[in-house]
Amino acid sequence: MNSIGTLYGVGVGPGDPELLTLKAVNTLRRVDLLLAASSSRNEYSIALDIARPHLHEGVPVVMLDFPMTRDRKDLESAWEANARIAAEELLKGRDVAFLTLGDPMVYSTFGYLARTVARLYPEIPVRVVPGITSFQAAAAGNGVPLVESGENLLILSGVNDAHVLSESLEQADNTVILKSYRNFAAIKEVVEHHGLGDRSFFVSRIGLAGEVGRCSLADAPDNPNYLSLVVVKKGPEKA
Amino acid sequence: MNSIGTLYGVGVGPGDPELLTLKAVNTLRRVDLLLAASSSRNEYSIALDIARPHLHEGVPVVMLDFPMTRDRKDLESAWEANARIAAEELLKGRDVAFLTLGDPMVYSTFGYLARTVARLYPEIPVRVVPGITSFQAAAAGNGVPLVESGENLLILSGVNDAHVLSESLEQADNTVILKSYRNFAAIKEVVEHHGLGDRSFFVSRIGLAGEVGRCSLADAPDNPNYLSLVVVKKGPEKA
Repeated sequence: MNSIGTLYGVGVGPGDPELLTLKAVNTLRRVDLLLAASSSRNEYSIALDIARPHLHEGVPVVMLDFPMTRDRKDLESAWEANARIAAEELLKGRDVAFLTLGDPMVYSTFGYLARTVARLYPEIPVRVVPGITSFQAAAAGNGVPLVESGENLLILSGVNDAHVLSESLEQADNTVILKSYRNFAAIKEVVEHHGLGDRSFFVSRIGLAGEVGRCSLADAPDNPNYLSLVVVKKGPEKA
Repeated sequence: MNSIGTLYGVGVGPGDPELLTLKAVNTLRRVDLLLAASSSRNEYSIALDIARPHLHEGVPVVMLDFPMTRDRKDLESAWEANARIAAEELLKGRDVAFLTLGDPMVYSTFGYLARTVARLYPEIPVRVVPGITSFQAAAAGNGVPLVESGENLLILSGVNDAHVLSESLEQADNTVILKSYRNFAAIKEVVEHHGLGDRSFFVSRIGLAGEVGRCSLADAPDNPNYLSLVVVKKGPEKA
């Protein structure tokens, strides 16, 4: 018997609790402790809400503090503290799952935790259970292929620079812009400038309270929610 | 009661039957007929093998012929024939699921079927159930984040032109090359030319018989299987 527990990164998908994989559900039912990241925005407890129908009664949950900063030192010390919280249980032989919205390997904070645990406690085994991303759910829900034979697909998260977005749209056949709440006016302008207004769509909070279904960028809210995305399709098949 | 059935595109994930979503499993258990694409390569019945543990006994399965051609007219007439096979059942009020490896909206033949059905039988409702892609499973299985904060991710399928791949690697932070069996020697050369040999890895047939676990491109088979992919990571975190 292994006296050290396993740390699992579990993707819970974008919102619908039916979009977890069987492996995610089986993992969540088996672990002794759940971790979820809380932030100043508090968006991250959404992962816990999605997972809740699948948890066994009484499983303890610890919210990990995750500073919304790009300061490397602040981030590192926060994740070291979080790694120690996880390790305390893991070293007692208890399995621990860290919940992430979508997929733990796609723009997730799990990477920080996994790296920090690997550095401080190299003896702790880490496993990852993938999850459906918001853009996959957006494509499925609207029957729009993200990418087809002969095409490419570019995934971005947040637009800081309209010029970079403009270049990206020139090069990619299909583009997904996650966290498109940031500089949404600029995104709209660039997409329309490229004549792609009728080849793009906006969705927000897929499968969650406050969902905004597919609409054109022109009809999207001026100040979209944090969990908003834009799909741009340049290929022969319209969005 | 609706007298017309629903056509479902169901993603069965990359190989492990535990990587289907609950929604996919629930859909497969409910439908009256299953469709899967067979090809001259015969790879497509893999989707049926993955789904098999989740099917109710005795559900009929029809293999649809899918020509491996880029001739638009041949493709169209094949998919019209396939759409008619599906429609015959759907118009009797029976629900039908078309199985796809990975996700039905990511390089899947489901797009052809759905469009043809929509054109010939606009009254038939179509729904899509997303699935875990091979590159998500590759990232999860190896604990390698596909993309992190501030980075982008480019997905390609098949490399026809080494120059195009070279440009892509220059522009993208992280790149996934699906169907990397095609021109694998050129892929290897371009990746190494960019000094990304130690920032890339190869995997094949994840979760399937004949799986090749993570290895360097230099150690990969010279003639990789059809279901092979390469991940290239340029960001600060190594692959």
